[in-house]
Amino acid sequence: MQNLMMASPLTISSLMEFAEKVHPNTEIVSVTLDNPRHRYTFADAFKRSRQLANAILALGAEAEDRIGTLVWNDYRHFELYYAVSSLGMICHTINPRLFPEQIDYIINHAEDRILFIDPLFMPLIEQLAEQLKTVEKIVVLTSPEHMPATTLDNVFCYETLLAAANDNIDWPELDENTPCSLCYTSGTTGNPKGVLYSHRSSVLHAYASAMPDVLNLSRNDVIMPIVPMFHVNAWGAPYTAAITGSKIVFPGPKMADGEVLANLINDEKVTASLGVPTIWSALINYLKASGRQVPSLERVIVGGAACPLSIMETLEDDYGVYTHAVWGMTETSPLGTVNAKLNRATLGEDTYRTLRQKAGRPIFGVEIKIVDGENNELPWDGKKFGALKIRGPWVCSAYYKLDHSNSHDDDGWFDTGDVATIDPDGNMQITDRSKDVIKSGGEWISSIDIENAAVDHPAVKEACVIGLPHPKWTERPLLLVILHEGQSLEKADMLAWFDGKIAKWWTPDDCLFVSDLAHTATGKLSKKDMRDRYKDYQFAD
Amino acid sequence: MQNLMMASPLTISSLMEFAEKVHPNTEIVSVTLDNPRHRYTFADAFKRSRQLANAILALGAEAEDRIGTLVWNDYRHFELYYAVSSLGMICHTINPRLFPEQIDYIINHAEDRILFIDPLFMPLIEQLAEQLKTVEKIVVLTSPEHMPATTLDNVFCYETLLAAANDNIDWPELDENTPCSLCYTSGTTGNPKGVLYSHRSSVLHAYASAMPDVLNLSRNDVIMPIVPMFHVNAWGAPYTAAITGSKIVFPGPKMADGEVLANLINDEKVTASLGVPTIWSALINYLKASGRQVPSLERVIVGGAACPLSIMETLEDDYGVYTHAVWGMTETSPLGTVNAKLNRATLGEDTYRTLRQKAGRPIFGVEIKIVDGENNELPWDGKKFGALKIRGPWVCSAYYKLDHSNSHDDDGWFDTGDVATIDPDGNMQITDRSKDVIKSGGEWISSIDIENAAVDHPAVKEACVIGLPHPKWTERPLLLVILHEGQSLEKADMLAWFDGKIAKWWTPDDCLFVSDLAHTATGKLSKKDMRDRYKDYQFAD
Repeated sequence: MQNLMMASPLTISSLMEFAEKVHPNTEIVSVTLDNPRHRYTFADAFKRSRQLANAILALGAEAEDRIGTLVWNDYRHFELYYAVSSLGMICHTINPRLFPEQIDYIINHAEDRILFIDPLFMPLIEQLAEQLKTVEKIVVLTSPEHMPATTLDNVFCYETLLAAANDNIDWPELDENTPCSLCYTSGTTGNPKGVLYSHRSSVLHAYASAMPDVLNLSRNDVIMPIVPMFHVNAWGAPYTAAITGSKIVFPGPKMADGEVLANLINDEKVTASLGVPTIWSALINYLKASGRQVPSLERVIVGGAACPLSIMETLEDDYGVYTHAVWGMTETSPLGTVNAKLNRATLGEDTYRTLRQKAGRPIFGVEIKIVDGENNELPWDGKKFGALKIRGPWVCSAYYKLDHSNSHDDDGWFDTGDVATIDPDGNMQITDRSKDVIKSGGEWISSIDIENAAVDHPAVKEACVIGLPHPKWTERPLLLVILHEGQSLEKADMLAWFDGKIAKWWTPDDCLFVSDLAHTATGKLSKKDMRDRYKDYQFAD
Repeated sequence: MQNLMMASPLTISSLMEFAEKVHPNTEIVSVTLDNPRHRYTFADAFKRSRQLANAILALGAEAEDRIGTLVWNDYRHFELYYAVSSLGMICHTINPRLFPEQIDYIINHAEDRILFIDPLFMPLIEQLAEQLKTVEKIVVLTSPEHMPATTLDNVFCYETLLAAANDNIDWPELDENTPCSLCYTSGTTGNPKGVLYSHRSSVLHAYASAMPDVLNLSRNDVIMPIVPMFHVNAWGAPYTAAITGSKIVFPGPKMADGEVLANLINDEKVTASLGVPTIWSALINYLKASGRQVPSLERVIVGGAACPLSIMETLEDDYGVYTHAVWGMTETSPLGTVNAKLNRATLGEDTYRTLRQKAGRPIFGVEIKIVDGENNELPWDGKKFGALKIRGPWVCSAYYKLDHSNSHDDDGWFDTGDVATIDPDGNMQITDRSKDVIKSGGEWISSIDIENAAVDHPAVKEACVIGLPHPKWTERPLLLVILHEGQSLEKADMLAWFDGKIAKWWTPDDCLFVSDLAHTATGKLSKKDMRDRYKDYQFAD
């Protein structure tokens, strides 16, 4: 039996056409290299997206072509999001912070035909030009007077192209399952892997993320995405705002500058902002030093890494800004779970402090589960931890042009690579990365829990726990400790410290006092490097 | 090119499974005939839905069967919503307020195989039993001790069936375009027409209606749908709450009893409620008489008819309850537009009063437009009015088992039968019904605008404007007036009253003072009857 509802597809162009009619006067404010405070409306933006679409067609691009962008968060990038996807092409956002050889790999793997770049990335592209086999044309996102000099051919000026294009276009009628955008993850090992989003997945993610217990966006909000548009579509905010009519503030290339952010928040009355923890550290440091406040800012949504409690408490207690922890990945569009607003008074300080650090509940649309090493589902008791798996309409089913992925089960779940607990109330908490968890006697030990217990010791400055091969238990934990300057500690005292703090059988088999630990470029412990460094270590019998 | 997002379908069972895992302890509170305050949780409800599904299968029903319900708003109806649709059957909610011959028609047209009924509807079904050709079994929603005596065969007790059923079930994997529920509209002419909703349409409508500028539902909300579950799925609230985890309060058969409603609001801390204007009149009358307040109630969502300003103002000024006007139809699932919260202080009293009476902006997902008599789109200037058309994934594409519908354009838009304006900010306002608008010289005249101007005259008690044939102008308006007792007024003075209040050419060609006007059963002016009554009237040359 056929249902009798209209078969209207969920498309990026439907977002655009809705916002143009219903929220024409909503503002978009941007910091760009050529204008410290560009300001226009949704109506202006989508008129220019239509011009841009005609310009892209004039450059010779066709449906399904990948169009690369190397651009910070600003209005021109917003125009590209809508024009490229609505043409049935794929907006391939590229992270300019990657190593040049990764950027080279990504552009070639995606087979981008046109690149749209910020002027400041021209030297990078000139450096890579020889290797870029598929790129035919480069468009620089600026006005003629700010065009950089270049040795390259086929370089165009964005504003010149738009000025020559008319704003009439009949958007193609797209199936909602048409791909709309592409973003590569950059793991620590192997080549970056591409996640190919669809119109449907992007629109469903936008609906879901607008909801009160997710981003809670309305027409009264002013949203500043400080998460980059080149990484998972700035958590979908440029799409969600088209639904909700929220004013958007794009901080451009100055995303980690506390003063720029504070000025934007106060001038533009930003109510909500998305960013990684280091952004909020930068903002707090600036606010403390300057003595300024950010009265319009109601809440920040923090993901990408666990947010230190001190940041949450400073933001709330000193600045009246609520912090929502969220969890997600490039593979999950990205929003998977969100920690909705908690009632501090009802919960009491201890529970409040514990709960707010969790990654929160799954958003309707995605399902999550935790499983043990044999893929048996584990209970949601807040204690058992297992590999976190996820599925849903905005979760990737495979990587772009990779036939087989180890990350996908036969039954369709995506293995996040994280290890987590889920409490009876549905709150998920990441406890470790799968590759760092220690497999001991068929059970799992969380390296992070031991590290957290270790650094509570007053003499300990930094701790790292790694699993190393053990003849009887498969793996056992080895603790590596850096002491505070001038402190000393015996191995036996360090290990005795864990009594009553962690399960007895989790206690590391050995402890070594070291002078340094390996870190990644972003300052995280690199356990992979530490395991390499101690690969010849052997536990005593 | 294939997108690489998971093909997870949007289904009613996905709502259920999400709520069961993520909001297991959310409460559902109901008034039923056998329990004045039944209380359990989402986890309880969905466990019983699984039992119910097994019971329905045991009764012999199969995929695509229509399962009729004649039930008020309570937890058993909620269980039916989820069990029937998740089995791939169609939950056909029947309005018990219709005339018996309409109910008879609807059940036969839908070919319902099983009926689930409240005990109080047993006499009605006994009366109709002879005519119901397809109904094989009747299940009464009560416990054994409350089973009504009946002369009918094949009557079962709901609680007895559930007690015998186990709660393990593997729900079928349904395509999201599978129909899930059916509801008949009851126009003033012709047979009722069936609208067949799909899993996809219901889930998208639920996503959309949860958003901050729509119903704004979160886990902190307690929602009381006073709109019936037998009419457009109680505006989708039983689905939306599964996403948001909002506590639900079902008022059962006591939906127009101000005291029952006030008790439920205060006992259960209801924050938001959905209902037609007469419900709020009943509540206000009770509150005024009793001197009680409803401090937990933050907002009410009002649709089904234009909400009188006096109700909005009393609710806000005397009880601190904000009123949101919404517009929709059975054919639109129903939410089409919503008047989001306005800022009274910023707007000023006059603008606030004007704006809040509009039906608000379209919800993302649906598109609306207004067209003239030649189907040319009219501007959104807040002045031009035309036939209101709508399209989107939760708008019906055809009526059930009716091959052709005059309500659908060739280009896919549904003609709502309403005439409306849309202002530049996207706010829609219904100005008339299409069949009542007066077509004069190729232009349209709003009968309601003239009536509103007429009743502003102190001598006028009630006014009705109808269009009657005119040899030169096609139609011209005739004004029919009932005067307040003891008042007198000359025709010329009445017509002169319109100077400066409406467009000159809208002024009625004639005015008749009458002693009565035709009304429908629900108290609205019946212009169809008035046109019949004056079908022989002729305008002077």
